[in-house]
Amino acid sequence: MDISTVWEKLVWNRGGKIIDLVLDGVGGLPDPDRGATELQVAETPNLDRFAENASCGQLEIVGPGITPGSGPGHLALFGYDPLQQDIGRGVLSALGSDFDLQPNDIATRVNFATVDEEGRVVDRRAGRIDTDTNRRLCKKIRDRVQLEEFDGTFFFQTVSEHRAVFVLRGQGLDGELTDTDPQTTGTPPNPPQPRNEASRKTAKVVQWFLEKVGEVLAEEHPANAVLLRGFQRYDPLPSLRDRFGLRGLCVADYPMYRGVSRLLGMDVVPRPGGMKERFEALRSNYGDDYDFYFLHVKHSDSRGEDENFDGKVKVIEAVDGLLPHLTDLGADTVAITADHSTPAVLGGHSWHPVPLAIQAKSARVDGVSRFDEYACAQGILGTRPGLHLMGLVLAHAGRLQKFGA
Amino acid sequence: MDISTVWEKLVWNRGGKIIDLVLDGVGGLPDPDRGATELQVAETPNLDRFAENASCGQLEIVGPGITPGSGPGHLALFGYDPLQQDIGRGVLSALGSDFDLQPNDIATRVNFATVDEEGRVVDRRAGRIDTDTNRRLCKKIRDRVQLEEFDGTFFFQTVSEHRAVFVLRGQGLDGELTDTDPQTTGTPPNPPQPRNEASRKTAKVVQWFLEKVGEVLAEEHPANAVLLRGFQRYDPLPSLRDRFGLRGLCVADYPMYRGVSRLLGMDVVPRPGGMKERFEALRSNYGDDYDFYFLHVKHSDSRGEDENFDGKVKVIEAVDGLLPHLTDLGADTVAITADHSTPAVLGGHSWHPVPLAIQAKSARVDGVSRFDEYACAQGILGTRPGLHLMGLVLAHAGRLQKFGA
Repeated sequence: MDISTVWEKLVWNRGGKIIDLVLDGVGGLPDPDRGATELQVAETPNLDRFAENASCGQLEIVGPGITPGSGPGHLALFGYDPLQQDIGRGVLSALGSDFDLQPNDIATRVNFATVDEEGRVVDRRAGRIDTDTNRRLCKKIRDRVQLEEFDGTFFFQTVSEHRAVFVLRGQGLDGELTDTDPQTTGTPPNPPQPRNEASRKTAKVVQWFLEKVGEVLAEEHPANAVLLRGFQRYDPLPSLRDRFGLRGLCVADYPMYRGVSRLLGMDVVPRPGGMKERFEALRSNYGDDYDFYFLHVKHSDSRGEDENFDGKVKVIEAVDGLLPHLTDLGADTVAITADHSTPAVLGGHSWHPVPLAIQAKSARVDGVSRFDEYACAQGILGTRPGLHLMGLVLAHAGRLQKFGA
Repeated sequence: MDISTVWEKLVWNRGGKIIDLVLDGVGGLPDPDRGATELQVAETPNLDRFAENASCGQLEIVGPGITPGSGPGHLALFGYDPLQQDIGRGVLSALGSDFDLQPNDIATRVNFATVDEEGRVVDRRAGRIDTDTNRRLCKKIRDRVQLEEFDGTFFFQTVSEHRAVFVLRGQGLDGELTDTDPQTTGTPPNPPQPRNEASRKTAKVVQWFLEKVGEVLAEEHPANAVLLRGFQRYDPLPSLRDRFGLRGLCVADYPMYRGVSRLLGMDVVPRPGGMKERFEALRSNYGDDYDFYFLHVKHSDSRGEDENFDGKVKVIEAVDGLLPHLTDLGADTVAITADHSTPAVLGGHSWHPVPLAIQAKSARVDGVSRFDEYACAQGILGTRPGLHLMGLVLAHAGRLQKFGA
């Protein structure tokens, strides 16, 4: 039995507020020249003081050796077993672009792309067109593409740069289709192929749609085609409220994280802006309406992806400077952790566990005095799956009853 | 697969003796004034020497964030997955009151209570009548209540003070009944309602029984009624002997722990008396008849429940003084741990892990030199589920064969 289903049964209508601060990809590896990780190099008096008054440990987010994508990483932190739940990126992108996705909608990620005269893909991202161009093209597609043969409707929404979302809504649709994105250049896009009988109709509608989009974009340059990948039907998950009695609020800038939050029934603060604005948005929304606050910091991950060790250090230091805005809110339980590691020396996500610190009156303060990978690993919480976080914060906030007599 | 089923297959007819000393609720939290837990404040030269010559770690008894009741806590320590096994308190009370419960008996917890002239509950515990009065009333009920309409028999046994146990034995009974205890005053007891078709007969028998008990107790005061809760059919678990080849002996004063032990097929020393007497009872029963000895100390939990930090410290120190009586028996493997934490500062059970120390010739002694929550957490056994204990003590005692060729 998945331990999170046990928490569901033990949740009661009491207890304090919880804040989860997720520093995306903050776990790192030592830079060979400095012999220290991004967290160790950064000057972080506030994070260190936080750890000093916390229970510390490390989370192995999905499992040993498993490098989490952002979706599974966050699902785990929110108490949803990422090995049981499979959310496509299309669904997440749609949810995150503030699109009002409905159950059974088929959502798909879109890249605007460049194809040559023979229809072969030349650039899978159309030179990373700017977001304004993207908006213009999406509107053009919405205005000009008529799907008379289809008894439903479609939506085509900008995400950012070359990225968009395509949604089909109607009867008898299914998401088991192969991608049209060939993931390479020099070949034409693939036709959408149904993976099962239930998806035949969907494949046909997508094919019609692509033909018409091709006509509409024919004169455009460089974005004269679209590539689709990650078709998926939207089957909503049980919400944080239904499962754990938590009225949740998400403060995040990026579609992905807003998407996961919306998928779990959290309210999402309208795009708050930069990091400082996000900490301020948390403050101004802190109050009686929510029990659970999720504050997401993206750039610790982005700088890691860019192999920018010093940039990641700077993001960490900026978070450190803002931390008092969060810790002085007086929440019963505050957890600081990450959804996965993104060591700058690797330039990508990794499987390495991430540091964890939980502050609460009922926390066993363990003498760890630095918020970094090595110090926290010595903490009293030990090494645990990412899924454990939700149970721990619920318990520390007094939100779980006793199990059995 | 539950790991304990693997141990079952590996157990052989060899190996040494095991003693588990369970200090109920011994895990704590720091007292704000002293900045130290009950175990840290206590003077415990013997426990510390024990840890110094042991492998140490901490057990998260049921799971992250989960506060174990005593039943699940002990089941886990004995190698039974508490998430798979569900034992009602009625069954445990009956087993613990030295009543010879049989498979398929329906057992129920009883409170003697006071009702007013309109039959409304005035006191759910009848002013906590003394145990002698309880005995007299139980005998009166046994002598005077005739259940002619029922083709089986009933038992009605004193536990202590206002608490008793009611058992029905017969054909076609089931335990899926609602409680008659309204859990409040000012309303009459609820009628017993069957939760399924199989329980209809049982509900009828219980209703007859309650009417007759009402007549028998009419002239009594303050105990003029009984409240029933936690109906359950007794489905015995596979025994420690069947599963792990252990002939077990329980030395415990409280019904609950004697109940769990009997449920798992252990012999139970007749009520041994105080703590010193329990250590002596273990000594005098130590020998060829048993492989596994479970010694239970209740008051570390009770003092924690009473928010009595200093009282809990004293219990720990008393255990420490008696510890040599246990360690000089020469058992191959001795484990000291708890079934859950009961921090005095919380005044109740908690989810926090408990310290563990295992002494055995084959143990990796790890340099931990204090038996407390923080020191043991640094030990070589790390942080593990409570269920792991049985596998570890079996292995240390040489009772498990190699897995695979």
